[in-house]
Parts: sequence; structure tokens; C-alpha cells
Amino acid sequence: MNDIFYMRRALELAVRGWGRTRPNPLVGAVIVKDGRIIGEGWHQELGGPHAEINAIRNAKESVAGSTIYVNLEPCSHYGRTPPCAEALIEGGFKRVVIAMEDPNPLVAGRGIRMLRSQGIEVDVGLEMLEALKLNDVFIKHITQQMPFVHLKYAMTLDGKTATRTGDSKWISSEASREYVHRLRSRYAGILVGVNTVIKDDPELTARPQGIEGRNPVRVILDSRGRLPEHAKVLEVGHDRKTIVAVTEQADAEKLKLLSGRGVEIILTQESDGWIDIGMLLETLHKKGIDSLLVEGGGTVAASFVEGGYVDKLTAFIAPVVIGGVSAPSPVMGHGVESIKQGIRLAHQQVKQFETDCCLEGYVKTPWKVG
Amino acid sequence: MNDIFYMRRALELAVRGWGRTRPNPLVGAVIVKDGRIIGEGWHQELGGPHAEINAIRNAKESVAGSTIYVNLEPCSHYGRTPPCAEALIEGGFKRVVIAMEDPNPLVAGRGIRMLRSQGIEVDVGLEMLEALKLNDVFIKHITQQMPFVHLKYAMTLDGKTATRTGDSKWISSEASREYVHRLRSRYAGILVGVNTVIKDDPELTARPQGIEGRNPVRVILDSRGRLPEHAKVLEVGHDRKTIVAVTEQADAEKLKLLSGRGVEIILTQESDGWIDIGMLLETLHKKGIDSLLVEGGGTVAASFVEGGYVDKLTAFIAPVVIGGVSAPSPVMGHGVESIKQGIRLAHQQVKQFETDCCLEGYVKTPWKVG
Repeated sequence: MNDIFYMRRALELAVRGWGRTRPNPLVGAVIVKDGRIIGEGWHQELGGPHAEINAIRNAKESVAGSTIYVNLEPCSHYGRTPPCAEALIEGGFKRVVIAMEDPNPLVAGRGIRMLRSQGIEVDVGLEMLEALKLNDVFIKHITQQMPFVHLKYAMTLDGKTATRTGDSKWISSEASREYVHRLRSRYAGILVGVNTVIKDDPELTARPQGIEGRNPVRVILDSRGRLPEHAKVLEVGHDRKTIVAVTEQADAEKLKLLSGRGVEIILTQESDGWIDIGMLLETLHKKGIDSLLVEGGGTVAASFVEGGYVDKLTAFIAPVVIGGVSAPSPVMGHGVESIKQGIRLAHQQVKQFETDCCLEGYVKTPWKVG
Repeated sequence: MNDIFYMRRALELAVRGWGRTRPNPLVGAVIVKDGRIIGEGWHQELGGPHAEINAIRNAKESVAGSTIYVNLEPCSHYGRTPPCAEALIEGGFKRVVIAMEDPNPLVAGRGIRMLRSQGIEVDVGLEMLEALKLNDVFIKHITQQMPFVHLKYAMTLDGKTATRTGDSKWISSEASREYVHRLRSRYAGILVGVNTVIKDDPELTARPQGIEGRNPVRVILDSRGRLPEHAKVLEVGHDRKTIVAVTEQADAEKLKLLSGRGVEIILTQESDGWIDIGMLLETLHKKGIDSLLVEGGGTVAASFVEGGYVDKLTAFIAPVVIGGVSAPSPVMGHGVESIKQGIRLAHQQVKQFETDCCLEGYVKTPWKVG
């Protein structure tokens, strides 16, 4: 077994915190002594111990003289918990292998320097790209104070999100929809336009199979306050929150009614008659929303794409052809003039969900690679 | 080594006749004796010897008592060459392994019966699906007397074939375009609409790298005779033929001019003001066109899809997002009402060409399974 093997194991463990650590990163740790794993841990939820601490606690023998593999630099500051770097020094670790530096300006190399100053061997950068991708949300949140935006859509093999009459159930396979529920459980918010609510009346909850989902906050773009009073997204409760973003065009009486039912209203500025997406994202971030899954339709998707707000994109492509010159497409809006002006995905992956093909990649990465 | 290994080798050899055997099938043969391959052959071109005969000629020792693997039932009739079944009997083969029966009504099991009647052991059905897919064009041609129609398009990740201003160079990767040239070299004809000629002025020739391409006949749908006089597709010669399909709406003077330049005119019946695709396909088949690669645009694609004429579909999806509510999509037309009415691909394969994802499959198979 080598370093890569143990780091991949740490990354695997990190994923177990999926959706529960917000706005903290996903972190896993593996302690190795004499070629054997003697302890494993991960950051399980916000407020709980960090991965390194859990791994030390779970160790079956003394960690003195061992190596710890962790996908993120151990913290050096007193936050919700004491600094992990100190715990590693106290534990007598010989070597610390780290996938990436902590992008948190409060850490940013200080943890590494603290360890090295005590004579601990520190290696940084193993499986870095995987580590960056795993914590894309955290990196954006902590370095730019803006939500990470992930655009998702499903389309037919001829590029349509519904038939000419509006039918869209179901374009994508069950396995694709299950993956969407898993995505939803990671993100702090899901955003759709009011037309999607009027047309489909979705619940917009996270119902991934086999894992306890955390429902994201539902954010509805509804500049003129057209949201139907009996829409399912207006059923709010302890784990079902809804934010409606409106402009001054919305009727005050309607807003009072929504507020009375526990729905949060964000009054946003207009930009060409539409909601100013940039300002909305800033407001959402201030309300603790570090990440947003944008689920369309095509006009909403276009306003995010054209504004340059999309960080990541997942497109499901089903092997079905429906035709129709008036059938809607996943990204509408004005559009670019030349193919060269189009947005190309980076770090693209092709996945398969039953018969659907899924392309996933970054429109822009929240990290800078040198 | 087992039967599957040798049959796959026969299928590999068959592919070497790609584009040269029309309207004959692609056939490869492998002769095995005492666990060693002693002869290989394939049908190289129309009029030349069949695969079995080439394999026997190439054998390094006597074929008596050996086994031959061939992806198509040996023929039993006198066509351009004497029947292969007879040659196998004369050669003293002990066993014949066949992937699929010959769909040619003149053979259809007669070759197999001829062999068995002479005490030769015959096994049929090994790697049958691969064999059927390899000779999809032949099966359609010989059983339905209609050209096999393969629709191909390239689109962006948001389902568009060009930007709102019409730019489409290049959506797909070089590797995708290279694959298209390879496809073209197999098909007897390429079909586009006149709008594609007006917009892009393509040559529509087959220029696959590393193999000598055979140029397919270029077929242009041009009901009203709008083809520009200096279009590259009108440059005809010994290996560059062009057929223009028109209706009575086309100007007689223009047609005379085109005829004078060596272009063939097919006057077709109108169907709702458009060319009647079914009748055109029948006419093309009578002219020896067993297969047609339809390269769009979206209106032409829709007329083939809606008429039920498409057998196979290849869609290239490039990881680029361009947006635009007015940007064209790969299949336009009227379109279906519900997703359930959409056309689902069978035997779907996902391929990758550089960063492009490619979905390929059958809209309807020319063979009946089960």
C-alpha cells in the first residue's frame, strides 16, 4: 500500500459527511503505522469534531510515530473546535500527508507551518485535483463569499427539455433522478423559476434512497409574484424552508399572504425587468446559503449562464428523440454569436445512469491552478 | 482460444471491406486447425471473391478437417461468384461456425442445409448481435429494398446545432469529424437540405485519414431549385456524383442548367409542399443507393424522423454551452406531444471522441430479434 491508496481512502471517508458539514468542508483522515491502518475518521457534521480528531479517537493503538493522511490541511485556529494541528503535534505524529492547503484565509498554510515547526514531515498535494473537486463548494464559499452555483438539467437526445406541449415526465431515467436527489441533499439551496412551479408543481425536496436527506432551502425566482397559492413549495415547516425572490413589481398583498405562511421574501433589485441574480446570490450567501443547485427552466438557466454565475454543470442526456421546432431547450436567453464564445466545460466527466448519458464539469473552477 | 475469439477475429477482418463491398455484405472468415489459425480472408470488394474463398486461398496448409468461422452464412447460389457452401464441402471442412443466417431470400438457410446435408457440423448464432449490427445496411437493403438511413448530427451540450447567428464551426471535435468521414466512406449516399448548402457550402466528400475513401453520392433536397450555381456539391466528376431532388416547383431552366453540368435530377412528388421522402428513398434504392447518411439540418432531420425513415442515429455532444432561444436544434419539425411518444434508441453505445460524447444506436433495427 502506498500514499495514494491511503489518500484515496481519506477522500472516500470525507464523502460520508455529504450534506451534513455545511458550511464546513468534507474531510476524511486515515492513520497508518507500520503499513497498517490503525485509525480512520471523518468530519461528520457541523459543530462535531474534525476528521483528524475522530481518527485519533478511533485509533486502536497509540498514534505516536504514525502517519496521518488528510484531504485538507489541518486547521490552525480556534473555531468551533480547537486547532487540529495542535492535536497532531500532541499525538506525536511523524508525518502528515495533505491533499490540499486550506483555502480558508484564517488557515492558508498556517497549519502546515505549525506542524513543520515541530519537526513533523509534511507532504502537500497528493490527489489534489480530487480534493479540490470534493470541496468545490467550500472553496467558493470561503474565498469569494458567494454561493457555489451548480446548474443541472435533463434533455432529450435532440436537445429538448420538454415536448412542444410541455410534457417532460420523464425524460431522464430513474437512476438519473436518484442522482439529482443525492445532489440536492448536498446543496444548501435549490433554485427554480416560477414557471417551473406553475407548470410542474414540484416539491423540490431531497429524497435520496438509503441516506437521510437534508432538504435544501427552496428558492423561487418570481419577480412579479405569480406563485400559485397552493403550490407544494409553499408548504413550509421545520425542515422545509422556502425563499421567494421578487421585485417591486410583485403585489404587496400577495407578499403579505406568503409571509404569513412562513415563506421568506427577498425583495431584489430589477435588472432589465428581471431579478438581479448577482445581488440575489450575495443576499443568499449572507443568509448562510453556501451552495445552490439551479434546476431551470431554460430562461432561468440562461440568466445564470449569461451572468457568468455558474460554477458547475450537470447535463443528463436521455436516448430519446422528440422533435419540435417550438420545444424548449435547456439554456435559452439571448445566446452567444459564435461557437468560440461558448462556455467550455473543464474537468469533464462522462457518467452513465441506466440508459442516460451524463456530462458533468466545471464552467469555472473556484480554485486557481497554477 | 475458443469459438468466440475466432468469430471476433472474423468480424474484425470483415470490417476491412468497409465501403468497398456495397451492396454486398461485410464478411470475414478464419480457418482453424488443431488450435491454430491457418488461413484468414475477407470480402475485399464487390465482384471479388467472397471471404471464405480468400481464407481458403490464403491457407498455409490443407484445410481438410479444419473449422471455418464466418460472420455470415456461406452463400448457396450462383451470383457474381460460385456458391461458397460448395467450396467448403469440396475443401473437406469438418465444422462451420456462423454468426448469422444470410437474410438474402436467395440464401436464407439454404447454405446451412447444404453443408449439413454433407455431414458438416454447423453452429449458428455466435456473436450474432455484433454480426447483425455490422451488416445493418445489407440486411435493410436485401430484405426491404430500401436504403438504410443513418441520421447524424452534432450539437452543443445545451442542444443546439448552431448559434443564433448561424455559426456552427466547429461544435464537434476533430476526432468526431474524422469519425464522420469514416462513416461517409461506408455509405452509398450523403443527404442534406439545400439550406445547409446555402449556409455552409460543404463538399460532402469522404476524407477519412489513413484509408482510401470512396465518395458517397451527394443527395440534395431542394424542392424549389434554390441550389446556388457555384455550390461545391455541383462540382461533379468520376468519383463525385450529385443528385438533386426537386418538386415541380423548381424552375425548368435551372434544372436544365444543372443537368448540363452532370448533375442528376430526381423529380419527386410533393407531400404537403415538401419532397415525399418515402418515394425519394424508393427511387434512390432503384438507382443502387443501399444506404444514406443524413447530415441535416434540423428540418430535414425532422422530415426523416417524423416519416419513420431513420434506422440508426449518431449524435455528437460537445461540452460547450452557447444558449439562445432562437438557436436551431438538431430535430425540428412538428414534434411529438408526450415524452412517451418519443423515439427511444436501442442497442445504444456511448463513445467518446476527444472531449465529445457520442451516443449511437438504432431507431429501428432492420432485423427482427426473438
